[in-house]
Amino acid sequence: MNAPADFSHLLARAREPFPASAKSWIQGSRPDLRVPVRDIRLTNGEVVSVYDTSGPYTDPAASIDVRRGLPGVRSAWIEERGDTEGYAGRAPQAIDDGQRSEDAARLRELRAQAAALQRRPRRARAGANVTQMHYARRGIVTPEMEYVALRENGRREWMEQYLADAAREQRLAGNPLGASIPRVITPEFVRDEVARGRAIIPANINHPEVEPMAIGRNFRVKINANIGNSAVTSSIEEEVEKLVWAIRWGADNVMDLSTGKNIHTTRDWIIRNSPVPIGTVPIYQALEKVGGIAEDLTWEIFRDTLIEQAEQGVDYFTIHAGVRLAFIHLTAARRTGIVSRGGSIMAKWCMAHHRESFIYEHFEEICEIMKSYDVSFSLGDGLRPGSLSDANDEAQFAELRTLGELTQVAWKHDVQTMIEGPGHVPMHLIQANMAEQLRTCHEAPFYTLGPLTIDISPGYDHIASAIGAAMIGWMGTAMLCYVTPKEHLGLPDREDVKQGIIAYRIAAHAADVAKGHPAARARDDALSQARFEFRWQDQFNLGLDPDTAREFHDETLPKDSAKVAHFCSMCGPKFCSMKITQEVREYARQGLQAKAEEFNRAGGALYVPIHPAG
Amino acid sequence: MNAPADFSHLLARAREPFPASAKSWIQGSRPDLRVPVRDIRLTNGEVVSVYDTSGPYTDPAASIDVRRGLPGVRSAWIEERGDTEGYAGRAPQAIDDGQRSEDAARLRELRAQAAALQRRPRRARAGANVTQMHYARRGIVTPEMEYVALRENGRREWMEQYLADAAREQRLAGNPLGASIPRVITPEFVRDEVARGRAIIPANINHPEVEPMAIGRNFRVKINANIGNSAVTSSIEEEVEKLVWAIRWGADNVMDLSTGKNIHTTRDWIIRNSPVPIGTVPIYQALEKVGGIAEDLTWEIFRDTLIEQAEQGVDYFTIHAGVRLAFIHLTAARRTGIVSRGGSIMAKWCMAHHRESFIYEHFEEICEIMKSYDVSFSLGDGLRPGSLSDANDEAQFAELRTLGELTQVAWKHDVQTMIEGPGHVPMHLIQANMAEQLRTCHEAPFYTLGPLTIDISPGYDHIASAIGAAMIGWMGTAMLCYVTPKEHLGLPDREDVKQGIIAYRIAAHAADVAKGHPAARARDDALSQARFEFRWQDQFNLGLDPDTAREFHDETLPKDSAKVAHFCSMCGPKFCSMKITQEVREYARQGLQAKAEEFNRAGGALYVPIHPAG
Repeated sequence: MNAPADFSHLLARAREPFPASAKSWIQGSRPDLRVPVRDIRLTNGEVVSVYDTSGPYTDPAASIDVRRGLPGVRSAWIEERGDTEGYAGRAPQAIDDGQRSEDAARLRELRAQAAALQRRPRRARAGANVTQMHYARRGIVTPEMEYVALRENGRREWMEQYLADAAREQRLAGNPLGASIPRVITPEFVRDEVARGRAIIPANINHPEVEPMAIGRNFRVKINANIGNSAVTSSIEEEVEKLVWAIRWGADNVMDLSTGKNIHTTRDWIIRNSPVPIGTVPIYQALEKVGGIAEDLTWEIFRDTLIEQAEQGVDYFTIHAGVRLAFIHLTAARRTGIVSRGGSIMAKWCMAHHRESFIYEHFEEICEIMKSYDVSFSLGDGLRPGSLSDANDEAQFAELRTLGELTQVAWKHDVQTMIEGPGHVPMHLIQANMAEQLRTCHEAPFYTLGPLTIDISPGYDHIASAIGAAMIGWMGTAMLCYVTPKEHLGLPDREDVKQGIIAYRIAAHAADVAKGHPAARARDDALSQARFEFRWQDQFNLGLDPDTAREFHDETLPKDSAKVAHFCSMCGPKFCSMKITQEVREYARQGLQAKAEEFNRAGGALYVPIHPAG
Repeated sequence: MNAPADFSHLLARAREPFPASAKSWIQGSRPDLRVPVRDIRLTNGEVVSVYDTSGPYTDPAASIDVRRGLPGVRSAWIEERGDTEGYAGRAPQAIDDGQRSEDAARLRELRAQAAALQRRPRRARAGANVTQMHYARRGIVTPEMEYVALRENGRREWMEQYLADAAREQRLAGNPLGASIPRVITPEFVRDEVARGRAIIPANINHPEVEPMAIGRNFRVKINANIGNSAVTSSIEEEVEKLVWAIRWGADNVMDLSTGKNIHTTRDWIIRNSPVPIGTVPIYQALEKVGGIAEDLTWEIFRDTLIEQAEQGVDYFTIHAGVRLAFIHLTAARRTGIVSRGGSIMAKWCMAHHRESFIYEHFEEICEIMKSYDVSFSLGDGLRPGSLSDANDEAQFAELRTLGELTQVAWKHDVQTMIEGPGHVPMHLIQANMAEQLRTCHEAPFYTLGPLTIDISPGYDHIASAIGAAMIGWMGTAMLCYVTPKEHLGLPDREDVKQGIIAYRIAAHAADVAKGHPAARARDDALSQARFEFRWQDQFNLGLDPDTAREFHDETLPKDSAKVAHFCSMCGPKFCSMKITQEVREYARQGLQAKAEEFNRAGGALYVPIHPAG
């Protein structure tokens, strides 16, 4: 079997442009700053332009060779700043891919496949700090910040017609619940948000391929999709294809949670081919390096793994620095104990050595690494609840307070930081999570996993968690980690990944509408208008998944003529309520006309007295 | 093709008992009052008992012939009250089934199929009022009320172990947001709720097959599934099978929204075979009788249709009495006008005649019919918003206020009443809907369709609406009308019906947990406990859809041994966080032991002063 050929076949479906859609770009202040959007051409001539996470893959003009990687959108910007230097980098080791030295042949083959993906790593020059937060705090608006501003705004022109009705706008204005979302997002606003730590732009200097995006409560709610091989199944090719598939459907970020063999090389493939920020949980790889024995972990191995991954270009690290020795006993009475992998690894280490976590103790050293590459912290919630029964307990909140302390340490180093959150939380306890996070973590972006609002829906936890995700997104959570239908049961395949992403795009969009993101609701209005006017193709194409919408419609009314029919299968031709509404308009027009005549006959007085004088 | 044989084949899948489950009954105060529950036997010997909507179909001992109908659970109760009488009933007409007199042969065949389903109708004796509300207000606790109380409580014994931890209970107590849910639901409590109009028990005296259930904010949140043939597709057999399929997955109520031909006979089949209350929208059938021309509707035809359906045993009628002439122009400026079928029919009638709605004008006469059969009102929201853009507008709220007035008229007649609600509502406007409904409709049960929180998810609107449904359910909505993935696109097939119901069971359960229904969260706890203890089979069987959970697990780890493995495919054997938690417990136990020894060494003082005296 010819691997590359097979691979391009795998990618074909993920590279297909969306129906009636074309990639276009919003031009920024410099020629190499062009922000992609997806323009959807409607049958009535309108063009609706939407946020686009899919990168060059959906651009038929882009020639992509996944064995060589994507071009570096940000390379010139990084270079120009003059505060970084190329260097030899850490020497690769067999153990990075979970191979022993005896596996030399296999290893050579693996490395050969990834040969054209190797880049000379960069790091901050001695004494420099290359984080977006550092620049922001010094008043510098980077191209990354301008990019984010243009991306958050989108093309506003087409939205005007939908946002025109002032009375309707008043009624539907959104309730930001304490967020401060401006009508127009400027580069300066982005800079200010990053400077105060309320948003991050995950963008490792060794990941110039990334199309910058921001995670913060005053921006569009983002979603993260997890991919990763595992000890049990999956291959590298499948993982890269999952990445492209995930961003096609709207993943703003992807976490590579690979375990087992070939972790390092898998990551080369993913990062070099990813236009979205990539996050990892470095303790997973560190654990592989010590043969899976948590007790054998050391600060040195962990530190070395951080540098290995930072050199490759990972944009954010989940770091479980809040799993402190003193908190472990708080989980003993829980129904479901510790459910975070990283959390349980660190708990085991702390117990085995009866010592404080080495991650907590070396936190400032970690900050030094982060600021040399601009890796962002995703401070992990190793003690998050794994069931409703354990929600909002002392273990969870003790860790959260620690994450708040560590946020301030990170900010002292100008390291970008977000905070991970639960998990499993019943609806009535969600608000308390958000309030506690905002208070103790000083508005650092919150990044939650769901939360699941019930525990009894295995097979449907993408739905149970989309409910919690939508609510906490509205309340201020900046990024939602998706949950697939396979959660708690098995590893997601490509269809599960899509289902999880769509469910989370729904949750994130519901949150954006509720909090009043100015670029959110116009798309709903455009779709509703199409629905009302029986523009079926537009209705499908404006949706999150045009293919499925079209398929579902075809099942009942497969004929092409039905796509322009002024009725649908729910009511049939006689009963159509929308058709009747057209008549209402005519009636109202005539009625208002009659009223106007009456008004004029009455002498045109604005207030007609209830008891006529005299 | 032999129709009966084919039909029993169709039913086979819907009749299969759930895995590891057996139907059992909670015995009431009289021998013929037995409330069904589903007992799930766990591998550790525990038995978890859950609410059961599936009727006799999941009882392998029950012999069911759908051509004859179910036995009448309530027949003796109705008979004993002595306030009803059998009578000849309205003469059947060809037009009831949308047939012309020329179709005599087809009609004879149709009627022959339903021959064994014909019952002699009953009605209230002259001057009598046979509604549950009427009894309740006179202080009578009916068997129906006792049945509801036992059903809402469920078997509490097994829950005790899960609710034992007082500190956890305090933290997780639920936030009823103004509801008044007692720890134990007594028959007297049910009577009081029905008397004050805060709950209804839909139970037409001509539908004795119904297993009584209550719809009210102080009870478990209920869900409704819509089925029905249509002008475009579907057959009678399929519709009955859909009913059985719907209640299998948890529909508490089913609405028959059939249009086109054979409406009357389809309804015979559905009602006689339904253990759950059946609702209809009588204006649909009335419109069929006038050839689909809204202008030709008359009060006489509508009234005759109400009696026709009341005699058959419909438990609640959606009546669009709030679509008043004066409100129609309020919809003219909407983005999506009137999207309710019933609403648009009435709007068209009002416009064509330039007259007030005949339904509004004859409302008291309708009440007279309702109280003769105990049909409940579901006051329809004919002006509900069909897009975010139209949410919470004046048209919607003007109608809602009218429904509030009509509720008081209905209550004057002791007619049970609930209020239908939207529709499409962004998250931040949901609370205002609930508050307005509670205020203007005096806590009459609210029954909402979703609401959908975004408009851009055709193909996934069950998810977009489950978010809104969960929230409004928590806030006080008593019943949630499901939305299937086919919403806005086509007619749901059996898989869509299941998907819609599961999404709504998730929403309703999330609401029950959040509002603190005392019989809700124990099931989550039991499942989480099973998950933590690697009792895979119990985890599947306690879920809303054991088959799908098991299938998903099998996809990754198909071997039977994996069902007892102390790890799962997400982490693999080395990484299992739950396994590590077992070690935490041992560690904490030892740690606490050490603490206890320290405490004893220190002299056993409860408070150790921070600054030791002296």
